[in-house]
Amino acid sequence: MANNSLDDVNCAVAQSLSVIGEWWSLMILRDAFHGVKTFEGFQGDLGISTSVLSRRLQTLTNAGIFERKKSAVDKRSWEYHLSELGLELYPILIGLLQWGEKYAPGEGGERLRLLEKSTGKPIRGAVVLSADGQALGPRDVRFEPGPGADQSLSELIANRAKRLA
Amino acid sequence: MANNSLDDVNCAVAQSLSVIGEWWSLMILRDAFHGVKTFEGFQGDLGISTSVLSRRLQTLTNAGIFERKKSAVDKRSWEYHLSELGLELYPILIGLLQWGEKYAPGEGGERLRLLEKSTGKPIRGAVVLSADGQALGPRDVRFEPGPGADQSLSELIANRAKRLA
Repeated sequence: MANNSLDDVNCAVAQSLSVIGEWWSLMILRDAFHGVKTFEGFQGDLGISTSVLSRRLQTLTNAGIFERKKSAVDKRSWEYHLSELGLELYPILIGLLQWGEKYAPGEGGERLRLLEKSTGKPIRGAVVLSADGQALGPRDVRFEPGPGADQSLSELIANRAKRLA
Repeated sequence: MANNSLDDVNCAVAQSLSVIGEWWSLMILRDAFHGVKTFEGFQGDLGISTSVLSRRLQTLTNAGIFERKKSAVDKRSWEYHLSELGLELYPILIGLLQWGEKYAPGEGGERLRLLEKSTGKPIRGAVVLSADGQALGPRDVRFEPGPGADQSLSELIANRAKRLA
């Protein structure tokens, strides 16, 4: 479970996980999407230790997920704002939330409802879309090496294609 | 980072993470979506220890993400098949993959291309959709307590709504 073991894997999923794939990081991001911006805010919501929280905020800031800005209210304190890169994690968070409601629902049913602000209707949620806007499942998508693929990745993809054929 | 600390949090994101929010679990799932089914297949692809892999496969099977079936080829060996619940993790995996390509691209650019099988076109990828099929961002969605929410979750949601107002 050491960070480095995944850093070495030439795979985008591994690289995502090496930055955000740690529980507290994802819980911090969940809070950030809920509007939490300050160290105290995250700590109050999550109840984690100062040292763990500092470390996670640092990692997420170094990765460019958060931008650290001086608070407009109190010039001595910092705020953590989601960057463009951070905001793009939104489908992943919504996916985790929906899946969790399904996997481990509350006793009384759904705990959290996600509604579209403008219409008040429940949202459909995280979906994989084609270029034409059609929802796609795992069997509708194939992988191809891109310009950045090395030899071993290309072989891996070829093997996977064979398995799925 | 103890499992129990997140198990106690009454939040669907936390519950998802307590099952799949561990690096190797997500890498195993990535492989499963690529058609890997056997213990040896996962081990060959990921190069993880027998004990870690056993434990993760067990957890994912207990959680109902994998269904364990006797291999049709070799009756003595087992295969791990993604269940319906497991297949629903697809948007999360695709989200992680796309985000990783953006966050840490290969030197030569994109390493992996995702194409729609039927058209050959690059897919759009993981997106949060409204009931009407519109793509939604973090500011377009609001949260509401559902029937399963307890007092403290309802208060938390009310506080968050205030912060975002």
